Amino acid sequence: MKANIEEILRKNLPKEEGYQKTIYEAINYSILAGGKRIRPILMLETYKLFGGDNSKLVECFIVAIEMIHTYSLVHDDLPAMDNDLYRRGKKTTHNVYGEAMAILAGDGLLNLAFEKAIDAFNLTSDIKEMKAVANALSVLAGKSGINGMIGGQVCDIELERNKDITATIERLNFIYTLKTSALIESSMMIGAILAGAKDEEVLLMEEIAGNVGLAFQIKDDILDVISTQEILGKPVNSDSKNEKYTYVTGMSLEEAEKEVEKLSNEAIDKLDSLVYKNESLRTMIIKLISREY
Amino acid sequence: MKANIEEILRKNLPKEEGYQKTIYEAINYSILAGGKRIRPILMLETYKLFGGDNSKLVECFIVAIEMIHTYSLVHDDLPAMDNDLYRRGKKTTHNVYGEAMAILAGDGLLNLAFEKAIDAFNLTSDIKEMKAVANALSVLAGKSGINGMIGGQVCDIELERNKDITATIERLNFIYTLKTSALIESSMMIGAILAGAKDEEVLLMEEIAGNVGLAFQIKDDILDVISTQEILGKPVNSDSKNEKYTYVTGMSLEEAEKEVEKLSNEAIDKLDSLVYKNESLRTMIIKLISREY
Repeated sequence: MKANIEEILRKNLPKEEGYQKTIYEAINYSILAGGKRIRPILMLETYKLFGGDNSKLVECFIVAIEMIHTYSLVHDDLPAMDNDLYRRGKKTTHNVYGEAMAILAGDGLLNLAFEKAIDAFNLTSDIKEMKAVANALSVLAGKSGINGMIGGQVCDIELERNKDITATIERLNFIYTLKTSALIESSMMIGAILAGAKDEEVLLMEEIAGNVGLAFQIKDDILDVISTQEILGKPVNSDSKNEKYTYVTGMSLEEAEKEVEKLSNEAIDKLDSLVYKNESLRTMIIKLISREY
Repeated sequence: MKANIEEILRKNLPKEEGYQKTIYEAINYSILAGGKRIRPILMLETYKLFGGDNSKLVECFIVAIEMIHTYSLVHDDLPAMDNDLYRRGKKTTHNVYGEAMAILAGDGLLNLAFEKAIDAFNLTSDIKEMKAVANALSVLAGKSGINGMIGGQVCDIELERNKDITATIERLNFIYTLKTSALIESSMMIGAILAGAKDEEVLLMEEIAGNVGLAFQIKDDILDVISTQEILGKPVNSDSKNEKYTYVTGMSLEEAEKEVEKLSNEAIDKLDSLVYKNESLRTMIIKLISREY
């Protein structure tokens, strides 16, 4: 599944030539630096679940969602943000191309994502398909913006940096839902929309994706604590004031595990409630939550 | 004309409440920090030129183009870019909200621009209007991206920072065309498209706007030299290696003035060749080039 996505991404990258060569290179470097391509795969598999058959249409959005995910990483890694020099063992974009070019490459990727998605209009003149593309664009934009991913990023940074903000599980739920779930929701909803799914089916996909994103993040917090305990050789004090507030600061490991299980079961029950079936999608969701993917 | 645009912008800004309050504030601060609203006015007046009458449709794009222009300023002012603490006598966004929030506010504005423009689909179910909106979206995205405004920004920064790049009038033309003209082209083209103008009329608007943008930038270079000469009380040595390469480094003041005149005359001749007339638009274009606007 991943090789297919890589192929789609590669053929949609700008040629590294002309006066703007450097930003094309920075963009291509950022996209090709790796990643599990979770969002594109979820989009494509949801599209298949609902029997989608104009694969060119969904390809535009596959490229778009991965470009949005990638730009968010490029900007997150900047010195003023998380200040990371490496990601997945490779130099981050600003570590290779400098800070100014990384800011512009991020901007360029976000913009290019919309250029690619809007290109889908050139592939159809059918009114029903055009409406689906418009609807998909609306979801893409909404879930990526200040009421979606960017909004989550803002709250996350503020929680970390502003000592006047009280950390609560409610606030953390909000952050995880926006920061992580929003793009997963976007991916599955767009897959459904482009395949011609009904409104209530699109909403069901949003709910499933919401569970998946949240469970994925909580599991991340759990695995973090477990690996720290293994290193220290003793239980981590969850009251530690120096630690970043996570799910397992707000509740016990066991409670957090129960929450993951609950979210996971709900997601699978909802998926199984559909008359449509896609075993690959089902397996992937289970693996994503258990973090084997 | 400006008051009308301010009103449209204000009613499209996010309410400053909820967990993401800070980024809403940073976005609103950036948009309301002033500006001549040249692009929205050009869009609206071109829309009127071609007899457009669904003003709600063009409003979505008016908001979008100003948000894109504003985000480009917010990111341009960042420490890693031009490092400006003030713009138009007001503190720049990162000077008020910090660097991380300014990066995210810029990202948020670019994303919100597309959210607003995509909203136009909710205002029509007419297939012809839907196609116009799709076409306008495509222009909006293309002219803002790596082959438009961002591309120009990249080349400009490289010309300034990379000593291996040879400055030429051709390269400068390319930079000005992308960095400044692209959004002006976008504004006038979208105004025409949404009003139902023919393809060749949209192309004519692109040419006129291209001339206006380039003439505007060259005039900027001329005025810069004249004001420096007045301060120094003597002619500026155009060979100065420390100075940024501009139009008046590559040619004499008189030649540059002639270039502005040529571009300006061409633009007005093209505008006058249309059967449609909008005296406000004509006056504004003349004032823009002569820098009285």
